[in-house]
Amino acid sequence: MIKKQIIFVIISGFILLSLKGQEHKIEPITYIPIGVFHTDYTPETGAPRQGILIPEGKGKIEIYPEYQDALKALELFEYIIVIYHFDKAGEWNHIARPPASNPKYTFGLFATRSPHRPNPIGLATIKLENVETGILYVSRVDAFDGTPVLDIKPYLPSIDGVKSTKNELIEKELGLNSIIP
Amino acid sequence: MIKKQIIFVIISGFILLSLKGQEHKIEPITYIPIGVFHTDYTPETGAPRQGILIPEGKGKIEIYPEYQDALKALELFEYIIVIYHFDKAGEWNHIARPPASNPKYTFGLFATRSPHRPNPIGLATIKLENVETGILYVSRVDAFDGTPVLDIKPYLPSIDGVKSTKNELIEKELGLNSIIP
Repeated sequence: MIKKQIIFVIISGFILLSLKGQEHKIEPITYIPIGVFHTDYTPETGAPRQGILIPEGKGKIEIYPEYQDALKALELFEYIIVIYHFDKAGEWNHIARPPASNPKYTFGLFATRSPHRPNPIGLATIKLENVETGILYVSRVDAFDGTPVLDIKPYLPSIDGVKSTKNELIEKELGLNSIIP
Repeated sequence: MIKKQIIFVIISGFILLSLKGQEHKIEPITYIPIGVFHTDYTPETGAPRQGILIPEGKGKIEIYPEYQDALKALELFEYIIVIYHFDKAGEWNHIARPPASNPKYTFGLFATRSPHRPNPIGLATIKLENVETGILYVSRVDAFDGTPVLDIKPYLPSIDGVKSTKNELIEKELGLNSIIP
């Protein structure tokens, strides 16, 4: 009997300890697409790795009717930030090897822009050419046709455009070495 | 009898027509937090509107154990981009009125950085001071304590830091007029 009581106390102790460790509720977060990319890129054709370096890469973002009134004054911005869902992304690994990166470096996934991420969220600063009743005509695009769009934000140079020599140097090792014309 | 058949044909026609309109599958997208912000800001204390303009605003991002190996080499970057979930955001409106914006302009929600959005996704370029076993020590932060973090990306000046005089002018009307020191 005493043995059983001791086992009970030990087990309930462990259960309490494990509950105490759960300081954060890790709850799933659900979003609903507000629009969709229309581009000439498919998984078969491929897409440029960083669209902003290619001015010719044009496309459209269709914003669904219930969100179109929220586009007011967006045309005042030359560049916008688009947040989208990499719906074609595959499994992720802790280590990523960007195509043109320096093999001397080992980059963790969060130190790269690989689409294969725990939460495959894409982020792109792209040029807004024109807005017409729910359609954003954009260039410098690298998203596949049909990519779901989650959010549109204005690009604000004073908070988004940081000057950092350190980042300029290390991005070269990641494979980026072009300057926007 | 013929009347009933005509009604049937009309109704099924309408059903087919409505199905045809659904060209896009608008499916919900679910993400799981990879970490959490630890800061001194709460909804009671308030938080700076754009943290990057306030170097003193320090905080920590705790990355959960299963994702910590993906942080390798992140410390090479001085600035990182953090994507998070505005878990305290309220209902959204199509029109937003940023606190210090010029009342002469009417900005649609997507032309602002208001947290009250259809998908309340936050985006911040912040300074990475140090990385220690799953903890990112950051400054220029404006997130509330306990804010769920969805993704960490390196800030890449050649694709993220666009020069745009048009955006520099219009961001002043949105209420941003500081230059990062």
